[in-house]
Amino acid sequence: MEVFIEPIGRLINEFSKLPGVGKKTAQRYAYRVISMSEEEARAFADAVVDVKRRVRFCRICGNFTDEDTCAVCRTRDASQICVVKEPKDVIALEKLHEYQGVYHVLHGVISPMNGVGPDDIRIKELLARLREGNVKEVIMATNPDVEGEATAMYIAKLIKPLGVKVTRIAHGVPVGGELEYTDEVTLARALIERKEL
Amino acid sequence: MEVFIEPIGRLINEFSKLPGVGKKTAQRYAYRVISMSEEEARAFADAVVDVKRRVRFCRICGNFTDEDTCAVCRTRDASQICVVKEPKDVIALEKLHEYQGVYHVLHGVISPMNGVGPDDIRIKELLARLREGNVKEVIMATNPDVEGEATAMYIAKLIKPLGVKVTRIAHGVPVGGELEYTDEVTLARALIERKEL
Repeated sequence: MEVFIEPIGRLINEFSKLPGVGKKTAQRYAYRVISMSEEEARAFADAVVDVKRRVRFCRICGNFTDEDTCAVCRTRDASQICVVKEPKDVIALEKLHEYQGVYHVLHGVISPMNGVGPDDIRIKELLARLREGNVKEVIMATNPDVEGEATAMYIAKLIKPLGVKVTRIAHGVPVGGELEYTDEVTLARALIERKEL
Repeated sequence: MEVFIEPIGRLINEFSKLPGVGKKTAQRYAYRVISMSEEEARAFADAVVDVKRRVRFCRICGNFTDEDTCAVCRTRDASQICVVKEPKDVIALEKLHEYQGVYHVLHGVISPMNGVGPDDIRIKELLARLREGNVKEVIMATNPDVEGEATAMYIAKLIKPLGVKVTRIAHGVPVGGELEYTDEVTLARALIERKEL
C-alpha cells in the first residue's frame, strides 16, 4: 500500500521540484496546503498559473515585465545601462535604491563548456541600443566568476570602438566581512585595486 | 517603484505562507516557477487545487482519504486500533511497515490552554467503534508531550471499563542517540521503564 494517497503524493512530488526542497519539506508544504481553506488554495494555484501567463520579458532590456516594456525602461535615465546576466540580478540591484539608470539582461553568459556562445545571449540587442546613441556609460555587472568576467571582457571589447565608456563593478572584500575568512583571490584583488584615502 | 511586478510579488507572497519559508526562499521558488514550462506550472497549480478538492477524512478513522473510507480501514486487521493526534502521524507510522492494525485520528488533543476539551476531538467516535466489539487492543500513540500524555491518560480511563486492553507507546532514549545529549526527563523515564535482558 502506498503511504500517501494519490493527490497528496502528487502535490509532494510537485513541491519537490522547487529548488532545495526534499521529500520531507515537500511533505510539510503539502500538509499546509491541505489545512488551507478552499479559497486560499485557489489563490495559491492562481498565483502560480498567473505568473506564467503574465510575466514576459521587456522588449527593450529583457527584464521581467507584465507589459510590453518594463517600468524601469519606461521611467528612468537611459544614458546609463547596467548589463546583468539574469532578470533576478535586476531585482537584486533595484533593492539597493541606488542606481538610477536602465538595464540590459543578457539571459546568460558566454560559456563554451555549456555550448553558449556570444550569439546565444542578448549581445547584439545591447549593441543595437548603443548605436541609437544617447548612452554615456555601460556598467558590466555580470557575476564575479570566470564566465561572468569573460563575458564582461568580451562585451567591453565590442563596445569600446563605439566610443561609449565601459565600467565594471568593483571587486574586493565584502563589507562586514573578515579578512581571515575572505578567499585568497578576492583578497588579492582587494589589495591590487586599493584606493588612496 | 515596486521591486517586483505584481504577479511575481503575489506569487512570492503565496509561497511565504508555507511553513518555514521566508521572503528569500519564496523568491527562489517564484523564479523556479517562472522558468517552468506552461504545462509544468499548470500541473503544479492543479495539484494544489486537487488536493483541496479530493482529500477528505475517512468516515471511520479520520485519516486522509480520497474515498469514503481510507485504504487502511478497508483492508486491515480491525482488532487493533492505534490512536493518533493527526493524519500525518498515520503517515509517519505507516512508513515503518510494522503495524498491521487500523487507526483512529483524534484531530487534536485535549488542551485547556487552547480551549480544546474532550468533546472537541474525536473521542466519542472512538468509543462508538469500541462498543461495536471486535477490538482487542487500543494503542495510545499521541505525542509524548504534556497534552499528548494527558489525552492518552484521559482516553485510557474511558476505555478500560469497556474491557479493552489499552497500551501506550514506550518512552526512552532514542535509538542511535547519546545519553549525554538526551534530556533529563527522557533519561529518567528510560531508567524507570528499564527492561530485564
